[in-house]
Amino acid sequence: MNPSGLEALIEALRCLPGVGPKSAQRMAYHLMQRERKGAQRLGESLLHALEAVRHCQRCNTFTEGEICERCASPRRDRSLLCVVETPVDMNMMEQTLAYKGLYYVLMGRISPLDGVGPNELGLERLVRRALDGEVCEVILATNFTNEGEATAHYLTALLSQKGVSVTRIARGVPVGGELEYVDSGTLAQAVRERRGLLT
Amino acid sequence: MNPSGLEALIEALRCLPGVGPKSAQRMAYHLMQRERKGAQRLGESLLHALEAVRHCQRCNTFTEGEICERCASPRRDRSLLCVVETPVDMNMMEQTLAYKGLYYVLMGRISPLDGVGPNELGLERLVRRALDGEVCEVILATNFTNEGEATAHYLTALLSQKGVSVTRIARGVPVGGELEYVDSGTLAQAVRERRGLLT
Repeated sequence: MNPSGLEALIEALRCLPGVGPKSAQRMAYHLMQRERKGAQRLGESLLHALEAVRHCQRCNTFTEGEICERCASPRRDRSLLCVVETPVDMNMMEQTLAYKGLYYVLMGRISPLDGVGPNELGLERLVRRALDGEVCEVILATNFTNEGEATAHYLTALLSQKGVSVTRIARGVPVGGELEYVDSGTLAQAVRERRGLLT
Repeated sequence: MNPSGLEALIEALRCLPGVGPKSAQRMAYHLMQRERKGAQRLGESLLHALEAVRHCQRCNTFTEGEICERCASPRRDRSLLCVVETPVDMNMMEQTLAYKGLYYVLMGRISPLDGVGPNELGLERLVRRALDGEVCEVILATNFTNEGEATAHYLTALLSQKGVSVTRIARGVPVGGELEYVDSGTLAQAVRERRGLLT
């Protein structure tokens, strides 16, 4: 039905997450009809990013050099290592301005249903990173989803048997949260993990 | 936050229809992390399609030559010209196997809210096409939306003042439709546009 170059483009667009055959066709027509400049820029920046973007040797996030700016910075506290699932999570942590240590980005989570196990995540790199002699505490900041929790459990076992001190960010009622509107699972955890008040 | 090549890719992905900053970031991470081959193919097919894909000189659809296969085919009825909004609509018409004439693809519709008027659609090309001497009837198959109807009205005035015979595809109760579940606008049109039965 379509000329071959357009058909190839429609097929290629399907590698984008959440894009099926209908959206891919709509996108291809839109690009060819109304966004030729945008399409040119997109094509070029894809090929450029593939050339330029790689993983930081130390924290595994995306970077263009060997080591990312954050890992190279002399201002960060090298004794703390925060483990997050994705670069987005790292950005969220940074925005809190509450953390001045370094990071390790898993680029995923243990998720057997998606075929992602410890080997696929390359967790031995994280172990090597945590045993560099400078890190005193590994803070697990994976999500509080089933997969994130499973990843945290696995990492706790893995790291503590190597003698690394492991902590988990706190779970509980969100700041500004009202008990009436918090789900019972969260509230139960908040009671179980209650802390003593300084007097 | 992100290295510049990745930031440029995220920005470029936003030219896709329906993709905002969050989805663009998710797509970019996904491509860089899990779909490098797909990203390569997408980049190349975008640049290839921009080179290769153009508009058919006769029917305005996408093609890689001067004139698309359908317009060049000797098997089509050259006396009929069906006007549709998009190549997808043309494909839908083809799938009915009920039409053997030629097409003209508007690549849009008159939509003042989006800044698309008769000039933006290049309707003078359609008029020239309809006056080629072979076309006897122009069948308007634009959508039955407000914009599609407005486009049909405009084209009717434009073409009939040049002496071209213009028809519109039928509106009414869908095949298999039950009156109980048809909206009243459609039913009203079906009554108004009732036809005599052959006995």
